[in-house]
Amino acid sequence: MRNVLYPGSFDPLTNGHLDLIARASRLFDRVVVAVAVNSEKQPMFTIEERVEMIEECCHAWPNVRAVPSYGLLVEAVEKYQAGAILRGLRAFSDFEYELQMALMNRSLKSDCETIFLTPTANNSFVSSRLVKEVALLGGDYGKYVPEPVARRLAVKLAERREKA
Amino acid sequence: MRNVLYPGSFDPLTNGHLDLIARASRLFDRVVVAVAVNSEKQPMFTIEERVEMIEECCHAWPNVRAVPSYGLLVEAVEKYQAGAILRGLRAFSDFEYELQMALMNRSLKSDCETIFLTPTANNSFVSSRLVKEVALLGGDYGKYVPEPVARRLAVKLAERREKA
Amino acid sequence: MRNVLYPGSFDPLTNGHLDLIARASRLFDRVVVAVAVNSEKQPMFTIEERVEMIEECCHAWPNVRAVPSYGLLVEAVEKYQAGAILRGLRAFSDFEYELQMALMNRSLKSDCETIFLTPTANNSFVSSRLVKEVALLGGDYGKYVPEPVARRLAVKLAERREKA
Amino acid sequence: MRNVLYPGSFDPLTNGHLDLIARASRLFDRVVVAVAVNSEKQPMFTIEERVEMIEECCHAWPNVRAVPSYGLLVEAVEKYQAGAILRGLRAFSDFEYELQMALMNRSLKSDCETIFLTPTANNSFVSSRLVKEVALLGGDYGKYVPEPVARRLAVKLAERREKA
Amino acid sequence: MRNVLYPGSFDPLTNGHLDLIARASRLFDRVVVAVAVNSEKQPMFTIEERVEMIEECCHAWPNVRAVPSYGLLVEAVEKYQAGAILRGLRAFSDFEYELQMALMNRSLKSDCETIFLTPTANNSFVSSRLVKEVALLGGDYGKYVPEPVARRLAVKLAERREKA
Amino acid sequence: MRNVLYPGSFDPLTNGHLDLIARASRLFDRVVVAVAVNSEKQPMFTIEERVEMIEECCHAWPNVRAVPSYGLLVEAVEKYQAGAILRGLRAFSDFEYELQMALMNRSLKSDCETIFLTPTANNSFVSSRLVKEVALLGGDYGKYVPEPVARRLAVKLAERREKA
Repeated sequence: MRNVLYPGSFDPLTNGHLDLIARASRLFDRVVVAVAVNSEKQPMFTIEERVEMIEECCHAWPNVRAVPSYGLLVEAVEKYQAGAILRGLRAFSDFEYELQMALMNRSLKSDCETIFLTPTANNSFVSSRLVKEVALLGGDYGKYVPEPVARRLAVKLAERREKA
Repeated sequence: MRNVLYPGSFDPLTNGHLDLIARASRLFDRVVVAVAVNSEKQPMFTIEERVEMIEECCHAWPNVRAVPSYGLLVEAVEKYQAGAILRGLRAFSDFEYELQMALMNRSLKSDCETIFLTPTANNSFVSSRLVKEVALLGGDYGKYVPEPVARRLAVKLAERREKA
Repeated sequence: MRNVLYPGSFDPLTNGHLDLIARASRLFDRVVVAVAVNSEKQPMFTIEERVEMIEECCHAWPNVRAVPSYGLLVEAVEKYQAGAILRGLRAFSDFEYELQMALMNRSLKSDCETIFLTPTANNSFVSSRLVKEVALLGGDYGKYVPEPVARRLAVKLAERREKA
Repeated sequence: MRNVLYPGSFDPLTNGHLDLIARASRLFDRVVVAVAVNSEKQPMFTIEERVEMIEECCHAWPNVRAVPSYGLLVEAVEKYQAGAILRGLRAFSDFEYELQMALMNRSLKSDCETIFLTPTANNSFVSSRLVKEVALLGGDYGKYVPEPVARRLAVKLAERREKA
Repeated sequence: MRNVLYPGSFDPLTNGHLDLIARASRLFDRVVVAVAVNSEKQPMFTIEERVEMIEECCHAWPNVRAVPSYGLLVEAVEKYQAGAILRGLRAFSDFEYELQMALMNRSLKSDCETIFLTPTANNSFVSSRLVKEVALLGGDYGKYVPEPVARRLAVKLAERREKA
Repeated sequence: MRNVLYPGSFDPLTNGHLDLIARASRLFDRVVVAVAVNSEKQPMFTIEERVEMIEECCHAWPNVRAVPSYGLLVEAVEKYQAGAILRGLRAFSDFEYELQMALMNRSLKSDCETIFLTPTANNSFVSSRLVKEVALLGGDYGKYVPEPVARRLAVKLAERREKA
């Protein structure tokens, strides 16, 4: 069994993430999407909301599931019996940071491999951060996220407007 | 008519920015400097102060004006009938981020081009952030900013000292 | 009048180049495509063939013309009264090399600006070198070059096969 | 069955390559090492010698084999029923080139994925080109290549000295 | 006398920092480790604790000392009669930022050189930030920091757990 | 005694190289400029001519000398009792290549340090290759090289014209 763990903040899931998950679901036996807490940044969606959105968007692929991840990544790798960590490599990703994390994770757990896949070039410029910026400024974010994410983003934005 | 919109935080305008504006004023019919809110960072100058300083420093070029910009950049592009967004490309600029933004803006508005110009190499290491750091630590910031900016920076620093 | 000079080897013109020319033809009054000799590499097409192909592919845009360029770029800039040199900035272009050339050209001719535009992300990975590699190995190069280029490439490949 | 195709020049195989093959042999069902002709450079070893050396160094892993590859990479992917192309991502690899090739190969064959793995950090600076440079200048290359490669390199160097 | 000033946050000192200090202590007459306030980030250790830990870890090298640094770096260079600023260059360091700072410091003090050394490749992925992340998530941080740092980190973590 | 070895092709010496040598002559006791054979490229000047030009340009600094270097760099380091290899770090230098070489040289000789200095920003875009390109195309190369180099370049160019 070849399982991979795909970690990230997914705040929220974008079409770029979904493209990568689709590719991984064809290449590996199981894909566990691990939604990590990002202690530095204030998230837009709770970790539970993010897990739910991924589950909703990926229900077509029976070998994909989403889980929350609170501790060290290498512990999640062990818990879910993953053979490797999966990461996306975009033209605009921080390549050096990705490589640094891969080496650190191998140092923490010597058999922990990191596998990189490349998403489609079409939306290579899409990131969760940019999608949120566009949404908060009233732009059309619908083409950058799956439909269930777009729906929830609309609710969040409405809540914010009410508060303000 | 060839208008370009030059967006940025300009907190504050540096000699590097001014060099770019001078070049653009020769290449294009009109240059609109759009001072953007940067929601992540606490600015040193208000958006109005920043607009005023740019207007003061650029009064020699009649085809340059400064405006505040609150929403999506592509909306300002439309409002000011700009044919393109203008950005500076320095050795120490974040090239990948610039390219990502250019592709995102084109995705939001298909005819929105981004044009990059290169400022002079002499002060390629100057950035608003570094100028503020030098100023706050008591260093000589005068050679990195136009005179009207230096004058206002001195006032800000004096205010801070009084508060402390 | 705002003229730009777009220099390159164009051995051969790709869809990426054509995309950039189309954008420039909308932004500037005239676009002069300057086909340069690349003394280091053995070209597939002669400089005359390359000029002809560009002329053929760009005949729809009356403000675009192609010329051969044998000397220093800054001399061609002067000869064709161009206000700036135009270059494409792709995710996979050599950004540092581009910036170095821009600064050298300004050093040689102080009013020589270099303007960078970003082509579409869809074929950001296409380059003349890769197209030739794919063609020489029998791959389908048709989707990476304009039709007149594809036709001439087929002739070149047939000539090579006859010689071998 | 999860097969991967690991293409390269391997002129000659280094400890860095071997480290990657070992990792891949644990993650995938079969690893086909495809020794490519590099038309631009004069190789030190013939393609047959390179295939033989890899077979010799990898005989401990029954799911690894080496083959020569003369045409388009995507054809080899099809011939060997590989689910993906495998490449190493080192701190000193040309990341942008790797990404460009991955997108080009996907463009030529839409289901052709490229998977990147990271070799160990210890010999991240080792490359075939550097090993040959060190060997030709009389340096100790023994710690950078597997023993069968070191033996053959010594023979090549002796042959060169006799000719000179 | 050849003195160098090695500035940084050192929050906390890692084995990578220590490796660089050891190399510098062999190349230069005196090494002054200048512990800087980082106004943007909330540190884990006070500046005094950081100075103490460095002094403790470097007592074997009589030509190394640690000092707190509150103002402009070029003032510390003058105060400690350093001929140059010393910085480490890792594969995963921010090379552009380092170069920008070197040019800014030379601009502030024309005879202020910056010298870069390369630490060992083995722990090139280790940074203070990553060590703290691993420690806070309960991972084994012992192999990334000197023993006196590990001891103090354990105390800090215990204090945090008690508070929570 | 603190000696450094500054290796390179120096085909020919530029003002950027000279700037670095001047800085090094102030920081170290002796600077040995090691002119290396570059087996891949056809040089414009012989190794003897390059050594002579450097000696001529550096005669004002008594602690600088130039020597030819034919073998492994680490052997020259030993022969000239250099404590470290010196290299320039420009915005447009190949940082990754420099780091790779530094790690390889340390691997070949464990006590072989590489020290990087930054030349002035003013002519950061100047390289030997660009200077030769400009000269061969009839451009004004005089501001990029020291006077003795400019004189010899003029002779070389005249010889070439006579041959052609």
